[in-house]
Amino acid sequence: MNKLKGVVLLGQSGGPTSVINASAAGVFLEALKHPDRITGVYGAVHGIKGILNEEFYDIMKEDPKELELLKNTPSSSIGSVRYKLADPKVNDKDYKRLVEVFKKYNIRYFFYNGGNDSMDTAHKISEFMKDSGWDCTVIGIPKTVDNDLAGTDHSPGFASAAKYVATTLMELYHDATVYDTPQVTIVEIMGRNAGWLTAAAQLAVEKGQGPDLIYLPEKVFDYDKFFADVERILKKKGKVIVAISEGVQDADGKYIPEHFSTLSKDSFGHAQLGGTATILADQIKEKLNVKVRAIEFSLMQRCAAHLASKVDVREAFHAGVKGVREALKGTSDVMIGFKRISSNPYKMKYVNVPLSVTANTERKVPLKWIKPDNTGLTKEFVEYCLPLIQGEDKAKLVDGLPRFAKLKKIRVPKK
Amino acid sequence: MNKLKGVVLLGQSGGPTSVINASAAGVFLEALKHPDRITGVYGAVHGIKGILNEEFYDIMKEDPKELELLKNTPSSSIGSVRYKLADPKVNDKDYKRLVEVFKKYNIRYFFYNGGNDSMDTAHKISEFMKDSGWDCTVIGIPKTVDNDLAGTDHSPGFASAAKYVATTLMELYHDATVYDTPQVTIVEIMGRNAGWLTAAAQLAVEKGQGPDLIYLPEKVFDYDKFFADVERILKKKGKVIVAISEGVQDADGKYIPEHFSTLSKDSFGHAQLGGTATILADQIKEKLNVKVRAIEFSLMQRCAAHLASKVDVREAFHAGVKGVREALKGTSDVMIGFKRISSNPYKMKYVNVPLSVTANTERKVPLKWIKPDNTGLTKEFVEYCLPLIQGEDKAKLVDGLPRFAKLKKIRVPKK
Repeated sequence: MNKLKGVVLLGQSGGPTSVINASAAGVFLEALKHPDRITGVYGAVHGIKGILNEEFYDIMKEDPKELELLKNTPSSSIGSVRYKLADPKVNDKDYKRLVEVFKKYNIRYFFYNGGNDSMDTAHKISEFMKDSGWDCTVIGIPKTVDNDLAGTDHSPGFASAAKYVATTLMELYHDATVYDTPQVTIVEIMGRNAGWLTAAAQLAVEKGQGPDLIYLPEKVFDYDKFFADVERILKKKGKVIVAISEGVQDADGKYIPEHFSTLSKDSFGHAQLGGTATILADQIKEKLNVKVRAIEFSLMQRCAAHLASKVDVREAFHAGVKGVREALKGTSDVMIGFKRISSNPYKMKYVNVPLSVTANTERKVPLKWIKPDNTGLTKEFVEYCLPLIQGEDKAKLVDGLPRFAKLKKIRVPKK
Repeated sequence: MNKLKGVVLLGQSGGPTSVINASAAGVFLEALKHPDRITGVYGAVHGIKGILNEEFYDIMKEDPKELELLKNTPSSSIGSVRYKLADPKVNDKDYKRLVEVFKKYNIRYFFYNGGNDSMDTAHKISEFMKDSGWDCTVIGIPKTVDNDLAGTDHSPGFASAAKYVATTLMELYHDATVYDTPQVTIVEIMGRNAGWLTAAAQLAVEKGQGPDLIYLPEKVFDYDKFFADVERILKKKGKVIVAISEGVQDADGKYIPEHFSTLSKDSFGHAQLGGTATILADQIKEKLNVKVRAIEFSLMQRCAAHLASKVDVREAFHAGVKGVREALKGTSDVMIGFKRISSNPYKMKYVNVPLSVTANTERKVPLKWIKPDNTGLTKEFVEYCLPLIQGEDKAKLVDGLPRFAKLKKIRVPKK
């Protein structure tokens, strides 16, 4: 059993979520409970970049009440980063620097909270530390609204975003069908390679208040079929609502904006700009001469903490707590994953997934869960997704608005 | 005192809100309490159009429990319409038809729920009924997220949309500042002529979690000043968040998409499409070579019933109730308006505003409430707006998702 004494360091990486701060709260609050083993609790200022620059927030100087409020504060209060470390076999400069910094500050417990890339980074760091003889546990904490991390039933961040998608589509269903005139509404949802979040639209369909058509990136996007589908439903119902992933691609692997940028401007009279929904709405307007509306859920779907799922907030928090407990036991080079025991009633347990398993593997929506006519997902998906979006857990209101955490953000003096 | 016996008819008009159904619930549930005077309760299928076509829902056939649920169901369940009646002096065909239909179905109490145009319509109908000798009370129920109705302190729908704007901007503030790289985020908010809803961004600013710049349509939009403002804040803070009304216009009265459509494509290398935020984000990217993100609150801001203000839901409902009570007293040709007694504590009373006062007058944000440097609104605005967004009142969750009203929508047989 690892009896090292030293500093806990948390870094966060990639696009934030409604609950990535909840995982930070889990790591911080649990770490603060073990002063016998943990001599300092640091938050890396903007992930790996902060570590390379020796920039850390001293979490021991924060008010624990504010750290509690992190559970319901969207996005990453210590800052995130998009920075990919090189392969250490090709260029180990950054890794050597990390070892140097870890030694300088006696960092013995390193937590990296992110998606596929981050788990790959954490794994490489873990290996490099071992080879360098610096004894340091490395634990990955999962995070992604895309839900594409391998080795875990689901990832923190997904469920709250899914709850946003389903709830907002139900509300839009009421709004977008209010007039007696024909209308096509196209809603663009995040997920560059995996369609989990777009699939959550099915939960609104189950309530009879969802989109008519759902397009995931797991299937090739067929333009002719799309226009025919929209036209068919428009004729039948007068209103069409489409939920589409930003990541859908044509048979050549081109995203929608790429697909249209290669067509001549003249074929449609103007250049095609904007995102997937805007372009498809323009096309529909052109072809069917109908009122269209393009809607992007944009950043709201990943930061609407006021609509977070209680299950998600709790799991995100406990993944952080569990990570610290595992690290203190000497566990290393693993990600805290979720293993589902049952869906009804919903039961899961935390498991240690080797980082090498999760690193850079994308988990996609099973094709057999996607209805062949793009009108939705099967009941297997609903059974999978529904338990995750249950309950509410959000910031208290002050003056009718959320009271989010306010950290002092005191820097650790550079050595 | 009017002791007429007859049918209550409610029509809704214009863009829906999170609480327009709450006003419908107020009219319906109160009307159902007076069977001695009220022989039928009808909802016009898509407003005036439904009346002209003799298409009504029979509200007496609905489950009162479902009518209660309308309070928290976004948009208009009976359907709305965008249909402007002609000036009866020019063409009275539609008005004659309305009198005919009112007589045929013994409609003695007519409620029209909408914005400026609808109050104008209601007033013209009221006059025409009088001239035609058909005794019918006509009551306007205010509704507009734009908050631009004259004769009332504020209008149902505005407060919930304002709460959405302020809450979502606070969440976006956390998300849009998460990286250490420069970024400009431009958020487009509804309000074609009045900037009330965009002004609600100030409530987020008060929390230290709001936009840096706020542009309302009440002031001429100066492009050079805008780019200079963004550049200045970008240099200082590295991040800029802009809240801008879709209705801002240049000195020639052109909206932003119009302004750029008249420039040659070549001046910026490509044609300008999309809305205000998209166009300005493209321009910023071009000029400052910085990461940009354009966000439209789109329909979400007017249908996010899960984030409705309790004050708004109650006032919307009671405006409907009050309308029926006034009608039974014989009051006619008025809109149910709100008169503020005090802001702290918040107190208001319902007042009868002559429809002729409200008809087609736009109430704008006072210029003295807008800071000259576009960085926000004064404390007078905050004092005005803050009481309105207080409290929560939303649909119960079933399976983690809102349980909205489900009406049977049984049609009144055509006579």
